[in-house]
Amino acid sequence: MSKLKTENYKGTRDFFPEEMKLRTWMFGVMKKIVQTFGYEEYDGPLLESLDIYKAKSGEEIVNRQLYNFTDKGGREVAIRPEMTPTLARMVASKSRELAKPIRWYSIPNLWRYEAPGHGRLREHWQLNVDLFGVTGFQAEVEIVQLACEILFAFGATSKHFKVRFSNRKVLNDFLGKTLGLEESKQQAVAKILDKKNKISVDEFNNLISEQLNKPETDLRLVNNFLNSTYTNLSQIAGIENENSKEIEAFQREMNKLGYGEVVMFDPSIIRGFDYYTGFIFEIFDTSPENKRSLYGGGRYDNLIGLFSNDELSGIGFGLGDVTLENFLRTHNLIPSFKKRTGIFACIQSESCFSEMAKISTKLRRVGLMIEMNLDGNLKLGKQIANAEKKGYEFVLIMGEEELKEQKINLKNLVSGEQKKISIDDLQLVIQSLTKT
Amino acid sequence: MSKLKTENYKGTRDFFPEEMKLRTWMFGVMKKIVQTFGYEEYDGPLLESLDIYKAKSGEEIVNRQLYNFTDKGGREVAIRPEMTPTLARMVASKSRELAKPIRWYSIPNLWRYEAPGHGRLREHWQLNVDLFGVTGFQAEVEIVQLACEILFAFGATSKHFKVRFSNRKVLNDFLGKTLGLEESKQQAVAKILDKKNKISVDEFNNLISEQLNKPETDLRLVNNFLNSTYTNLSQIAGIENENSKEIEAFQREMNKLGYGEVVMFDPSIIRGFDYYTGFIFEIFDTSPENKRSLYGGGRYDNLIGLFSNDELSGIGFGLGDVTLENFLRTHNLIPSFKKRTGIFACIQSESCFSEMAKISTKLRRVGLMIEMNLDGNLKLGKQIANAEKKGYEFVLIMGEEELKEQKINLKNLVSGEQKKISIDDLQLVIQSLTKT
Repeated sequence: MSKLKTENYKGTRDFFPEEMKLRTWMFGVMKKIVQTFGYEEYDGPLLESLDIYKAKSGEEIVNRQLYNFTDKGGREVAIRPEMTPTLARMVASKSRELAKPIRWYSIPNLWRYEAPGHGRLREHWQLNVDLFGVTGFQAEVEIVQLACEILFAFGATSKHFKVRFSNRKVLNDFLGKTLGLEESKQQAVAKILDKKNKISVDEFNNLISEQLNKPETDLRLVNNFLNSTYTNLSQIAGIENENSKEIEAFQREMNKLGYGEVVMFDPSIIRGFDYYTGFIFEIFDTSPENKRSLYGGGRYDNLIGLFSNDELSGIGFGLGDVTLENFLRTHNLIPSFKKRTGIFACIQSESCFSEMAKISTKLRRVGLMIEMNLDGNLKLGKQIANAEKKGYEFVLIMGEEELKEQKINLKNLVSGEQKKISIDDLQLVIQSLTKT
Repeated sequence: MSKLKTENYKGTRDFFPEEMKLRTWMFGVMKKIVQTFGYEEYDGPLLESLDIYKAKSGEEIVNRQLYNFTDKGGREVAIRPEMTPTLARMVASKSRELAKPIRWYSIPNLWRYEAPGHGRLREHWQLNVDLFGVTGFQAEVEIVQLACEILFAFGATSKHFKVRFSNRKVLNDFLGKTLGLEESKQQAVAKILDKKNKISVDEFNNLISEQLNKPETDLRLVNNFLNSTYTNLSQIAGIENENSKEIEAFQREMNKLGYGEVVMFDPSIIRGFDYYTGFIFEIFDTSPENKRSLYGGGRYDNLIGLFSNDELSGIGFGLGDVTLENFLRTHNLIPSFKKRTGIFACIQSESCFSEMAKISTKLRRVGLMIEMNLDGNLKLGKQIANAEKKGYEFVLIMGEEELKEQKINLKNLVSGEQKKISIDDLQLVIQSLTKT
């Protein structure tokens, strides 16, 4: 019979223990940081009704990237391509009873049908962090702080990344009032701004000019806007004072809290998603070979509106595991996961099995990690070779002789050093060895 | 516009933070225990090629329970209904290079289209534990130990559950040699044995008799077999000595290691899956209201054979989260997760925000959990009410006066006690409060 292929489905990953250790470490650092800010973990089902994506996700996702199908009971369902619709549904279902502010995070796997490429897979995991029920700029401060603290916790510094932020309200003021563009042209200009860094200056100027009412004079306004800073933005005619003040207040607060070197106003920040309504930000890798937006987020005022008449303003961001891993690799921030922290236990004959199993059980019950060789007929050299291959630094060796003396050999595989210790002392000795 | 429903898809669960805490706790205990035995975590993609389930999973799963569909590129895929085919594929792909014995675990979510009911959902999570590369009964010993230690770690004792085991080889000897049944009848009898505890004695005897060659005499043989013990099993004609010895050796070793009260030979244990080839076991809840098989597993000699010409014997088990949660609830083994361990920080005016945010950042960076009220205009009473609703025991309160003195109020919401402490001492004070 011909054999089935051992390849995994296109655009996905098999997580063998070594890759899984990396993933567990990445998720662990993310969780630890969001938890110190008081965020609580949630999760939803992998499948949702197709309706909620049709209503909430962008056209590209629904028409081209969605894994949707009809279940055996005739329901139209889809594998989640993003977590936000599930989040909105869940928050809406309990929006009144949940204690405010709502601080939630999740690390779901998400699916999009796309051509796999650098940083783009069909299945990826994404940290989602969201804060609901605070309308002031202090929520923006917390969310951006959190986004930075995660990267700091991985060992990154302000040299490795920058946060660029803007505000949809300011952008709308500029497009609508300063430039006097009608809605469809506003969208077209926003799209061109969004790809500003990917095209040449000439191309950018040409594309923009096509959309402007008075290209000769308005192009200068566009460049003024793009070169504005948080202190002089308010001088641009058309931009509401209240909105430019929000940008200034945010930047000043971030400076005060010590994030001045990392965070900067950048009027060209747009973010593609339709649901952002105010503050928006993106985090950029500063390394020349990976110079791109790592992740970002922003404020959305009416996320739960599809499900509920209640109003609840939210702000959040998403950070994908593939993107993060690339970033950490680029900057050499991934430790080695080869070494095992526990002990591998060898037995020199079958008759030693019971005693070694008893000792192991006792040690495991106090939280120590003991992996046992189970085959007493396997040569000791082979057992030790297995332990080394698995990444252990220490092995226990029990033979008939030791069994009689109630002692056991402890061998350091790196130094080769070996000593006989009493079984009664074993727990303390191993605790001191495996403490990190 | 009419609102979308906030209900989740049938047969699934929304994990709000409280439910998520329970899940995290359950998974955490499971992980801790399997890790002390040296097992390493792996994971595979949620979608696999439909082929591997057609080849590996039972007919009921493939024809009636599978979530399968054609992807946008024309590939036939399915959401995993069980982890074993993915495990087999992954192990087969690296069977030679992986250090033996291979000890792996995973807690995937699995999907089956079924009518939701007690303990049966469309999406559930399942701990999968597998050990490859050891053919001796010591592997059985370790796997059953592990299955017991997990329940012990949750606070269960030998009063709450029992492990019943048997061996496919012994069953095959009995059906083929003792009873002299042809293969199709062997299967029919096995199925009847499998439901022995769900039907009456008369019904059982009638169903069995229909399949036997000489019902008058053979029914007694069946009852002899069902009443046999690990010490007298070898006396049944037809059962190979080698096979009854395996049962005896396993039980004696479990007795030696202190599991004698929990583990017992039960010839009626069958387990439905086709791939078991030797030892099989099931864990039963002993409570009258939940008297059923909780989980189980066994040995499979040729799991990777579909993918590879290599041979690698394995043994493993699966433990579902819904089943486990029911068991823990039945025996009152679930702690309360309402209390939050960190601190909620209140501010009495907007001007206190920056200082409180600075203090919080410092404390979070040493691992403490500080959730902040962000709105300085919210009344203090409302802030404290929010903290209480969120489950906090302690709040920090900063006002203008404290800000000047560089002090802060720490209030115990349970006792009502409040004291002013120096900001410099805050870290040590909070560390002593939140240490558990």
